[in-house]
Amino acid sequence: MSAQPVNTGELAVVGARVRKVDGRELVTGQARFAADLRFPGLLYASARRAGVPAGKLVEVDPSPALRLPGVVAVLLARDIPGPNLIGILPPFDQPLLAAGEVRYEGESLALAVGVSREEARRGAAAVRARIEPWEPILTVEQALDPAARRIHPGGNVTYSKKLVKGDVAQGFAGAQVVVENTYQTSFQEHAYLEPEAVVAVPGGDGRITVYASCQSPFHLRGHIAANLGLPASRVRVVQAYTGGSFGGKDDVATEIGALAAIAAVRLGVPVMIAHEREESIIGSNLRHAARIRYRTGALRDGTLVAGEAEILLDGGAYASESPFVTMKAMIHAAGPYRVPNVRVESTTVYTNKTYCGAFRGFGVPQVTFASESQMDELAAALGLDPLELRRRNALRPGEGTATGQVFTQSVGIGRTIERVAEKAGPRPMGPKPAEGPPAGAQPATDGGRYLYGRGVACLLQGISNGAEGIDVVGASVQMAQDGSALVGVGLTDMGQGSRTVFAQVAAEALGVDITRITVRQVDTDAVHDSGPTVASRSTTVGGTAVLKAAREVAGSLRSMAGLMLKCPPEAVRLAEGFAMLEADPQARIPLAEVATAAYWSGFPLMHLAFSRAPDARFDHETHQGDIYIAYNFGTHLMDVRVDRWTGKVKVLRHLAAHDVGRVVNPLGLEGQVEGGSLIGFALAHLERIDTEGGHIRNANFADYAVPSILDRLPTETLVVEEPSPAGPFGAKGVGEPPVAGAAAAFANAVADATGLRFTRLPITRADIAAALAKEV
Amino acid sequence: MSAQPVNTGELAVVGARVRKVDGRELVTGQARFAADLRFPGLLYASARRAGVPAGKLVEVDPSPALRLPGVVAVLLARDIPGPNLIGILPPFDQPLLAAGEVRYEGESLALAVGVSREEARRGAAAVRARIEPWEPILTVEQALDPAARRIHPGGNVTYSKKLVKGDVAQGFAGAQVVVENTYQTSFQEHAYLEPEAVVAVPGGDGRITVYASCQSPFHLRGHIAANLGLPASRVRVVQAYTGGSFGGKDDVATEIGALAAIAAVRLGVPVMIAHEREESIIGSNLRHAARIRYRTGALRDGTLVAGEAEILLDGGAYASESPFVTMKAMIHAAGPYRVPNVRVESTTVYTNKTYCGAFRGFGVPQVTFASESQMDELAAALGLDPLELRRRNALRPGEGTATGQVFTQSVGIGRTIERVAEKAGPRPMGPKPAEGPPAGAQPATDGGRYLYGRGVACLLQGISNGAEGIDVVGASVQMAQDGSALVGVGLTDMGQGSRTVFAQVAAEALGVDITRITVRQVDTDAVHDSGPTVASRSTTVGGTAVLKAAREVAGSLRSMAGLMLKCPPEAVRLAEGFAMLEADPQARIPLAEVATAAYWSGFPLMHLAFSRAPDARFDHETHQGDIYIAYNFGTHLMDVRVDRWTGKVKVLRHLAAHDVGRVVNPLGLEGQVEGGSLIGFALAHLERIDTEGGHIRNANFADYAVPSILDRLPTETLVVEEPSPAGPFGAKGVGEPPVAGAAAAFANAVADATGLRFTRLPITRADIAAALAKEV
Repeated sequence: MSAQPVNTGELAVVGARVRKVDGRELVTGQARFAADLRFPGLLYASARRAGVPAGKLVEVDPSPALRLPGVVAVLLARDIPGPNLIGILPPFDQPLLAAGEVRYEGESLALAVGVSREEARRGAAAVRARIEPWEPILTVEQALDPAARRIHPGGNVTYSKKLVKGDVAQGFAGAQVVVENTYQTSFQEHAYLEPEAVVAVPGGDGRITVYASCQSPFHLRGHIAANLGLPASRVRVVQAYTGGSFGGKDDVATEIGALAAIAAVRLGVPVMIAHEREESIIGSNLRHAARIRYRTGALRDGTLVAGEAEILLDGGAYASESPFVTMKAMIHAAGPYRVPNVRVESTTVYTNKTYCGAFRGFGVPQVTFASESQMDELAAALGLDPLELRRRNALRPGEGTATGQVFTQSVGIGRTIERVAEKAGPRPMGPKPAEGPPAGAQPATDGGRYLYGRGVACLLQGISNGAEGIDVVGASVQMAQDGSALVGVGLTDMGQGSRTVFAQVAAEALGVDITRITVRQVDTDAVHDSGPTVASRSTTVGGTAVLKAAREVAGSLRSMAGLMLKCPPEAVRLAEGFAMLEADPQARIPLAEVATAAYWSGFPLMHLAFSRAPDARFDHETHQGDIYIAYNFGTHLMDVRVDRWTGKVKVLRHLAAHDVGRVVNPLGLEGQVEGGSLIGFALAHLERIDTEGGHIRNANFADYAVPSILDRLPTETLVVEEPSPAGPFGAKGVGEPPVAGAAAAFANAVADATGLRFTRLPITRADIAAALAKEV
Repeated sequence: MSAQPVNTGELAVVGARVRKVDGRELVTGQARFAADLRFPGLLYASARRAGVPAGKLVEVDPSPALRLPGVVAVLLARDIPGPNLIGILPPFDQPLLAAGEVRYEGESLALAVGVSREEARRGAAAVRARIEPWEPILTVEQALDPAARRIHPGGNVTYSKKLVKGDVAQGFAGAQVVVENTYQTSFQEHAYLEPEAVVAVPGGDGRITVYASCQSPFHLRGHIAANLGLPASRVRVVQAYTGGSFGGKDDVATEIGALAAIAAVRLGVPVMIAHEREESIIGSNLRHAARIRYRTGALRDGTLVAGEAEILLDGGAYASESPFVTMKAMIHAAGPYRVPNVRVESTTVYTNKTYCGAFRGFGVPQVTFASESQMDELAAALGLDPLELRRRNALRPGEGTATGQVFTQSVGIGRTIERVAEKAGPRPMGPKPAEGPPAGAQPATDGGRYLYGRGVACLLQGISNGAEGIDVVGASVQMAQDGSALVGVGLTDMGQGSRTVFAQVAAEALGVDITRITVRQVDTDAVHDSGPTVASRSTTVGGTAVLKAAREVAGSLRSMAGLMLKCPPEAVRLAEGFAMLEADPQARIPLAEVATAAYWSGFPLMHLAFSRAPDARFDHETHQGDIYIAYNFGTHLMDVRVDRWTGKVKVLRHLAAHDVGRVVNPLGLEGQVEGGSLIGFALAHLERIDTEGGHIRNANFADYAVPSILDRLPTETLVVEEPSPAGPFGAKGVGEPPVAGAAAAFANAVADATGLRFTRLPITRADIAAALAKEV
């Protein structure tokens, strides 16, 4: 391997198992989530939803609501001072309150403001709406029919991109084996513990502050200001503690943040909007359902020579982050492999359903499920061990990805395969029903009821926004005279533990104990617009910004300590809460003394860093070039036991090996891998939004099967560290990648156990039981 | 004059008459002052005061208070987690709650927390304290008696400094005329509209936020954290709208901020402390009373050859900012004149009275009154016109101040004298009683009841902390994609209009309308520790920081616009909300477009500036060297009419000429000059804290004569602009200087009118009437 160690120094805090810096307030209930906040005069608001998936909005009549006691006001579309539009990319296509047309059942038509949540909700229900219903467009096929009604003026294609590498026709011509199949995945709900909530508080100084459970406070600020018709500098967004987001609290937080702010400014008092679970499911984005056709060509030794994919995503009523998801799915379609010839088309279309957007994985779980299914099908066709097939094709440093991007270091896919192979142990016991026991396998011990199988899946996931947008993060580090430091970053911690990572990075750079570091909640006033908290980029791009700011402050401390210790600044080391001579660590001064002296000597003790990913050479036509600053590579292995009678799948073993560059917090890393894997498992086995005629039928946790703690996987996290120059101390992100790995490995394990290739996620108990019953 | 123009460019916003950016919310009542803030569960706290000026504190018994309904808790000194000490300089000598000893009547002994302000106050009153009284030390003489009880362990001298320039003995030996006198001034109350108030709010994240009516939020943060025993990074101080401070809301804000924070953390709920007027007068610092002996020697042509002063300040029970006031009085004792030989001793002593600290002018009004009285006495002795004497001695560029500091530009004292001379017009009518009508004066027209006089006074006032401490300010400028900008600064606006000045500076640098700029209230989280908001340094050091930050952002905009306009960044001008070609202003792009493009191209749009005054070469033994970054120079003229019968003085005319370097906001400047002059006038004529046996007898606005709107002076502000490199666009500060000018001119005018030299301020109606009666 040509990978060079990025940081060879001894690290004190980075790499240590650190408990979450905000864990205490979270588990003791002291942490205040947006819906916990109270302000004098606080009012509550609730939206009247359309309830029909498509139609002409003829009239919205607030008068019945206004007659109710406890209803203070009802806002209509015409009450919105600004353009009444939100969205991620221009043309922003989503109204805050519908005007003229209804595009999905969760569409907000009016906002009722009441003195309590209950009264606001009753007010919303009482708003009368006259909608002339239209035949809803419910499938991708209907939407793409040239004769179809246009859901948006530009037509029903939300976004469509094509990636071309090499010559696919020639590639397939040279292939000795070709496999082909079509795969589908379903809508998935984020199902965070805390539904969406915001409070907008007018400041008495011409400014308004919005406290929000949210993912991307700067998105909120921009859209709130625009829709209020105020300069953005008059809007401040502060992230409240956020009980999960997974991509979900972006558009919807913007929507309710803007609505609450408009109501608050109009009424001159604080206004809260807090969703109930049903509203959270129907009225905010889902993971895109996908239909993906794949064709893969290889030589007889398994060498991949060509790959082709057509990705069709159902994006629902609004664009949201569909453009990025479309692109990300496309970029990742060839997997972590050397494939000389690749052609991928990726398209998202509008339908009259709840809109789809960001969801942990961001299109990658869908394509990974499909492409890793292909790999297993290819392995079967070639008679190769699935892991061996992947090993032969795994990208190596210096080789190009599907976009032709070449990394000379931190390409750990091969090592994750090896780690899994080393740890894999014997296959689970029991024959595969179709093929009989494989050579060398143990015989089944429990008769005919259980089937056993093993699935593997490899993946890569681009870290950072990369060429998808702009990848900047602001961070500030401010040291007080007592040597404690306050860290601000523009990226949010929604539970993933990034505040802890940032605290570690700052503590490491400043040479202090992590208890001397405080990481603030995100406040748009505090740091440079850092864009959205997405793309597993917190540790890399955010951590780099923190490191940069902390190093500037450390520089001041070293300069001061140099004067005090009578040595050049470079001879000073900051560690253990002291400034010490590198050459004689006993010559040391407590950092608080150094900080006080530095302040009074005029050395700056606060720095605002601006971290920007390097310019990418990327062609947005062919999609060739350097798209991401790094990739996380992973290999998952899942051993399952399938109950023939019930279809129930028990995961016996789950290995999740990821090349994370450098582990910052092993405890946090394990949490991320376990959490991400569980979402992948749920995508593959449990969760499916059921729609009927444009209505979601299971918008509650009784009917929608979110995994419970009993479904927790026996995940074993295997760490591969191939340091990357992209992140602090070599770290890469890990938030999203496990989703794809677990989902794909699960599907392959079920196929291995049952001998049946399920091509649609989720593969539920019922699906399995029904399919096995048919086989018998 | 050798002064070089500092900025010759055309200015759009700087120099314009701009209404206060926060004026609207202030006059409409929307602005929220600290005592207006409400939080769920808010409790109120009130201190039990000692009520005796000195004694042994034997016991504090909270039990009677705790038995009252509505009293939640009582905090004693032992409940303070930290050192129970605040102060400006080490050794911090002031306890939050007294333990062991009482040093002044306003000493806090315990803090009662109640469910309302009234109940908290009742609780405080019910706390039982056993104090064995000691004979209080009430005068400077008593305090300096070697046998005196020591008020603090280090003795009764708070601070003592000596300035020596040249050889004073030799100077006086060469003098042809010598005048000598001793002058006194009294304690003065800040008398801001809004008494002190803070609210401490525990954040649920291990942090605490203190909203405070305050002057120096970073002082608060440090002391609150220390006394809470928390890292400073866990404490956030946000300035609430502040209804005046004038130096007064520093120590006391720190005291009540820390007490409220300790109570809030202990009880887990927000706690407010808001003073009533009596508490505000007795329990927070006053302006130092002074006794100053002066000796001045000159040649017969008026040339000053030697000056000697002994300054004795009564500092009350605690050091507060006495060290700086001691020093500042000393530095300014020789006035804005060329004096080759100077010797000044300056000493502050402890007494058992309300402590003294910062008050607009900061020791300079006291010494200016004395030294400008000396100048008039000298003029009389020499038979010279008072203005002519000053003209002959006024500092010129290239000449040294009392500390030997040489400015080569922005030394406008001569021009202020000329401006006043030009504008002065005829003397007020009426004879001086002792001398008869001066040559050329108009005869009196109103018989014998009224006496007329004219007084002039010159002054200088050092701008910035300078060598007194460290002079750093942090500022941030953040431009949003819509081209509006948010400005944060570490210095507070307490009414003086600095937010408006900062907005102007930012608007100028960014080329936008001032309505596109929002200046935040100070938040310690947001910017570098900027030290205290004192020393008329907001415009200079603060404005420089804002300018620096804004120019960085402007640089990004220019770079982006250069790409868009296809020209080098230097060819781009930002003005009128556009980026335009300098050479062809019609080639222009709206700034919002440029800002959006800059964001998406990765140009930083936020910058945190750190402004640090240049290193000073200053000898803290002899007090020779470069102490301040600039001086404001001024000349005041006051024409008065004195009512012989009542002693009432009517100010007929008041010219206030100041060299401010560059006017940023003429409207704000006039406000500062008028307000400062009124405080000087009140110091000279109206206000006197009456103490008896260590008790303040007039701690209310019925008995303490604060000027009302009817006392408004007919001030005419005359602007002299000698640009200084110290401040943005050449600006210097103007907050404090008018106080000294008006006070000294008033005293000289009364002396001129009555023929009597009053050597003690205030010169009240009663004083005048009594003195004139004696004369008759």
